[in-house]
Amino acid sequence: MRTTTGWQADGPTARLRRTSLQRRDLRPDDLAIRVDYCGVCHTDLHAVRSHDGEGGRPLVPGHEFTGVVAETGPAVTRFSVGDPVAVGNIVDSCGECAMCRAGQENFCHAFPTLTYGGVDRHDGSTTLGGYSREYVVRDRFAHPLPAGLDPAAAAPLLCAGITVWEPLHTLGVGPHSRVAVAGLGGLGHLAVKIAVALGADTSVITRSPDKADDARRLGAHGLIVSTDPEQMADARDRFDVVIDTISAPHDLGPYLRLVAMDGTLSHLGHLGPVTVETIDLLVGRKRLSSAGSGGRPATTAMLDFCAEHGITADIELLPSARVNEALERLDRNDVRYRFVLDMSDLAA
Amino acid sequence: MRTTTGWQADGPTARLRRTSLQRRDLRPDDLAIRVDYCGVCHTDLHAVRSHDGEGGRPLVPGHEFTGVVAETGPAVTRFSVGDPVAVGNIVDSCGECAMCRAGQENFCHAFPTLTYGGVDRHDGSTTLGGYSREYVVRDRFAHPLPAGLDPAAAAPLLCAGITVWEPLHTLGVGPHSRVAVAGLGGLGHLAVKIAVALGADTSVITRSPDKADDARRLGAHGLIVSTDPEQMADARDRFDVVIDTISAPHDLGPYLRLVAMDGTLSHLGHLGPVTVETIDLLVGRKRLSSAGSGGRPATTAMLDFCAEHGITADIELLPSARVNEALERLDRNDVRYRFVLDMSDLAA
Repeated sequence: MRTTTGWQADGPTARLRRTSLQRRDLRPDDLAIRVDYCGVCHTDLHAVRSHDGEGGRPLVPGHEFTGVVAETGPAVTRFSVGDPVAVGNIVDSCGECAMCRAGQENFCHAFPTLTYGGVDRHDGSTTLGGYSREYVVRDRFAHPLPAGLDPAAAAPLLCAGITVWEPLHTLGVGPHSRVAVAGLGGLGHLAVKIAVALGADTSVITRSPDKADDARRLGAHGLIVSTDPEQMADARDRFDVVIDTISAPHDLGPYLRLVAMDGTLSHLGHLGPVTVETIDLLVGRKRLSSAGSGGRPATTAMLDFCAEHGITADIELLPSARVNEALERLDRNDVRYRFVLDMSDLAA
Repeated sequence: MRTTTGWQADGPTARLRRTSLQRRDLRPDDLAIRVDYCGVCHTDLHAVRSHDGEGGRPLVPGHEFTGVVAETGPAVTRFSVGDPVAVGNIVDSCGECAMCRAGQENFCHAFPTLTYGGVDRHDGSTTLGGYSREYVVRDRFAHPLPAGLDPAAAAPLLCAGITVWEPLHTLGVGPHSRVAVAGLGGLGHLAVKIAVALGADTSVITRSPDKADDARRLGAHGLIVSTDPEQMADARDRFDVVIDTISAPHDLGPYLRLVAMDGTLSHLGHLGPVTVETIDLLVGRKRLSSAGSGGRPATTAMLDFCAEHGITADIELLPSARVNEALERLDRNDVRYRFVLDMSDLAA
């Protein structure tokens, strides 16, 4: 086994503590990655808050990180020591089902191995995430980090970025599309940047009129204040795609009403049941979808697109020792727009 | 005013009673139609059961009917006396909003005038439906009944038919599509016939294995028994379009799991809230939609398509005097697959 250092959660209210972690010895197709930067995702917060420390399964969050290859297994051909790489929220899959064969490993019928809190398919161990100085990953699930992308600001692309890329890409957003992004947070601000770069006429829907300057700076062409009934009524049936990144449970009706005929509301960033009034789907012929992460080919395409268009997340970079502060502030939505932890304060 | 005869509901438990009804004098663009056949839709049953007889607004159900033009207003040019015609569930709209201009009068922003239980846009009266010997309708909302369609069996096309046509058509169902129809009732059996005629590989999903012969006779290529977990598991991710016509509230999850990636579950025949687990939309990238009726151009296209392919509903024709029996049996799902009332037992 290999030894590294990371931040472990011991229970829903405890502060994450710095601890020594074990990583597996490299299998033939494994890479060891020196983790330099790891984004702080809402999922991490949720995992920590719902973690039952008694269960015995350790929790080390973190599933959007960048770093450099530190060592390669003997069968690895795609990477060499020193290569900049990135890892997202899945690190393995069965490789054989229809979804894996279609490059949608995120929908693997045998369930993909999650980057943390998952079960390794080979040794049955619990996966430990990227809030650590080293990660060992099967080479197929590491992505070359394209040149020109700042590795700290690129880290959130591996979860937030691919999550908004998937619906924008699969719904065919392009120069003739009208896109609205509801919620301007970690997901939303990247959705705006990517939609704008795809050429779409892009609006932001927000409760906070004080985000108008930010929306404009991110490239948005319009702003709709969701608490203003007149603005919402004016925008009825206007958008081919509405990307709803609001993480708190909320009524989807007002957002469905903004979708144009045969358009789609893609609801992200929330797991659990959602209730819609049939009439809100029926009238004007709207569609509801959801997304979260993506497969390997889409992740590569997203990274290439972001490199070509100079897109990274707007981040606040903190030393990893301030991880608890980051989680607390994220819980209050006090971040514009993503915390990234700098892991250089951790011993290898 | 004009006088005719029809079947009126006086309250949720009362039997419909035969009564004399008033129709408006013809406006310049009105037709008077002698109603020959009117289908019995689940909506009628729902309207009767939820009708508050105390409210003073009379209820005469019926919104899928055929007949012949009995008289025309002076501005009518599209119809002549004696023409076979059909009317569906809307009889007027604002004509000016974006939806009306797009030929989607069913989504009129000012709300379309319903065939019964609606409010006439000109005189404010409550519209009375097709369970009657005469109907007066604005000519734009009468559809020529194509030659070759049996007028009794064609009546259900005007509600059930257009309701299943809309999703099949707008979701692009054709020879390369894989379609499943859940529920083999009034909507479902027409969905199967139309999907098959569109060239789709079409399966029926049913709780009742005893519907296998019917499914085959309707042209279906496959049958999935929804109570058999193995059959449902085998059909995972298999269909581009699943048309869910099950009228009782039910879990959409098992049906979403049958939808192929980027495919759509279209949920018909139910109004009210539906709850879906985000994960059922997210995993495999599925979409949820709904439909109910259609606009004038789609209705014309549907009727032409049905005439070309010899599609009508499988009906049980009853004299209108047996309307209460029809509603009671419909409530028990004891009909294959649509009751149609023969209005010739009513005085003009």
